[in-house]
Amino acid sequence: MTDQAPPGAELPGSRLSAFYKVRGAPASIEARALAIAVEQSVEMPLAAIDDGAVLADIVGQVAAIEDCGDGWFDVRIDLAAATIGDDAGQLINMLFGNTSLHDDVILHDIVAPESLLAAAFGGPHHGLEGLRQRAMAQGRALTCSALKPQGLPASKLAELAFRLALGGLDFIKDDHGLANQSYSPFSERVRACASAIREAAAISGCATRYAPSLSGSYPEMERQLGIARDEGLDTVLIGPMIAGVSNFHALRQANPDFAFLAHPTMTGAARVSPILFAKLFRLFGADAVIFPNHGGRFGYSAATCAGISDALRCVWDGLRPSAPAPAGGMTVRRAPEMLDFYGADVMLLIGGGLLEARDAITATTADFVRAVAEHDYGGLRS
Amino acid sequence: MTDQAPPGAELPGSRLSAFYKVRGAPASIEARALAIAVEQSVEMPLAAIDDGAVLADIVGQVAAIEDCGDGWFDVRIDLAAATIGDDAGQLINMLFGNTSLHDDVILHDIVAPESLLAAAFGGPHHGLEGLRQRAMAQGRALTCSALKPQGLPASKLAELAFRLALGGLDFIKDDHGLANQSYSPFSERVRACASAIREAAAISGCATRYAPSLSGSYPEMERQLGIARDEGLDTVLIGPMIAGVSNFHALRQANPDFAFLAHPTMTGAARVSPILFAKLFRLFGADAVIFPNHGGRFGYSAATCAGISDALRCVWDGLRPSAPAPAGGMTVRRAPEMLDFYGADVMLLIGGGLLEARDAITATTADFVRAVAEHDYGGLRS
Repeated sequence: MTDQAPPGAELPGSRLSAFYKVRGAPASIEARALAIAVEQSVEMPLAAIDDGAVLADIVGQVAAIEDCGDGWFDVRIDLAAATIGDDAGQLINMLFGNTSLHDDVILHDIVAPESLLAAAFGGPHHGLEGLRQRAMAQGRALTCSALKPQGLPASKLAELAFRLALGGLDFIKDDHGLANQSYSPFSERVRACASAIREAAAISGCATRYAPSLSGSYPEMERQLGIARDEGLDTVLIGPMIAGVSNFHALRQANPDFAFLAHPTMTGAARVSPILFAKLFRLFGADAVIFPNHGGRFGYSAATCAGISDALRCVWDGLRPSAPAPAGGMTVRRAPEMLDFYGADVMLLIGGGLLEARDAITATTADFVRAVAEHDYGGLRS
Repeated sequence: MTDQAPPGAELPGSRLSAFYKVRGAPASIEARALAIAVEQSVEMPLAAIDDGAVLADIVGQVAAIEDCGDGWFDVRIDLAAATIGDDAGQLINMLFGNTSLHDDVILHDIVAPESLLAAAFGGPHHGLEGLRQRAMAQGRALTCSALKPQGLPASKLAELAFRLALGGLDFIKDDHGLANQSYSPFSERVRACASAIREAAAISGCATRYAPSLSGSYPEMERQLGIARDEGLDTVLIGPMIAGVSNFHALRQANPDFAFLAHPTMTGAARVSPILFAKLFRLFGADAVIFPNHGGRFGYSAATCAGISDALRCVWDGLRPSAPAPAGGMTVRRAPEMLDFYGADVMLLIGGGLLEARDAITATTADFVRAVAEHDYGGLRS
């Protein structure tokens, strides 16, 4: 962000709506809603503000309160776009920063006037369609697996990458636990795995893409992107809530040749809707967003997963759709059911489920790839 | 982080202990604990791992499970230090990354072998004593206030800074909502406020320190630190959970002349203990840590606040103590009670409570400063 006026400022008085679920009593909900509106804007007693423009244009406004039963209320608060500008961290800060400290509030959704957020943040550079073009995968879902466990040396991870790639996957990502540890430093691992995948491609004819996991500070992530680029890679994995969303957004701006797969680590779903996190990750530029599929290791419902994939693919002010990447304990056996649920606009990510095949890993991977290729997408393949 | 082996790796097999509160049934708690240990380390079926060293040295180990009644269990999981190295983001990732997606687990605490974390992260450069020396405030608490509301132009914030500084405060920080908005861009605001405080110091003889709030990506924060340094400032405010903890730590490493005040925005206390957040912020280098005082706008208990201040000031492997900075709806009237509670090793932060005095703001600020200076600290002033 520069000192130039951000886009939100061009529309004086323009606001975006934050939707909260608030637990409380009918008698006190109005006061509680106002307290949230103040906390998420000026954060001081209104009586101590004597500037008319601040009171009119900056203080959060309670726009609606609806009783949804069981002691919970839907509260809509309209926040001044000018307080956010074009910084992703500041968007999170204004939506939920201090209110995250209260346990009676869940941040549920945001809605903004047309193009306000899109103009400020831009969304994915490549998105679902860009990933699909790279993988030359028209009319079918994308496939992905993960390199793990951490603790293996780079050479063993590369061997694993080779065997998975021979199975014909579109993408192979690092496990999000792979950082720059002494047992497989980033540069050594990425060089070994990229080379293994090139070797596999020479045999199979299938150009699998390897997405290493970025970690550390921004300068460290820039260094890692440089190593990846030197190896001819164009896709990386990032955990936006650990990198910091402003940094994720800045990296995406500075590296438009790269596609970013967003990992949900530290998105702690209980107090911020996982659907909103997916929406924000798309907004900030994730080309694919990984999330826990229903019926796996995590407790997300089918409705939540449908909500996440809708948020990633819906029409939204000209933002490119991101690829939903359901994961977390998935198996090849579940692929058809998942494809029926999500359709072709999805990246299926199976990690441990392929690794469990051990010696048969390449054959099992090929089964996965075939299941995705041969699935009946209900006429999608024209 | 470089490709050199991080400190944790020098101790093969060394582990740190993560303590979780887990909700569950006695019959299933062992399996649940093991699932967390696997999720926070190798994140794949153990049956698919054939590397003996990974199984022995890398997989998380359930070290203890204790029934604490009401369906909650204390679970201790020992994680391999080598998986973390010296990266702050990776520490968070391994402690709670994917497990944050489960709503039956609260991350409660970490304990590591002597000096393991201290050597990797280093803690505050200045800490409580450094802040005290800068403020020339021996044997008493430190005082702080905040510039707000956002929406005011830089000139009005500077006027406010002038009047607060005339009251004799040790520190004046930006509100954490002040970013780089069009109505008071960072550079304009910092130049105006720094100048106002110099002017006040020339009158009062009291060298108040102004701490502007950093926001945006790492390169943007570096730019902001440069502006602050050019103005002769040596203290800044940062929200580590928005900046990204690796970036906070890297900024602190690269700018040892600056003291960092950590803000709790987005620390969403319900699923990670606020005491642990304070401990981690100290570990990563916060010289002062702001948190909501009991009896204010937020729901923290006196016990939680005591726990936070203990975590910031206790003896810990040679790490400098950080200054606890209780805040959130505090008033001058409450200063004596807070000083009795926290003692002299504290930074009292009153924002709105001073601003409410409006025309009497300088006099009220001076009352606050005097209450802190004249408090009976029970013989601490030798």
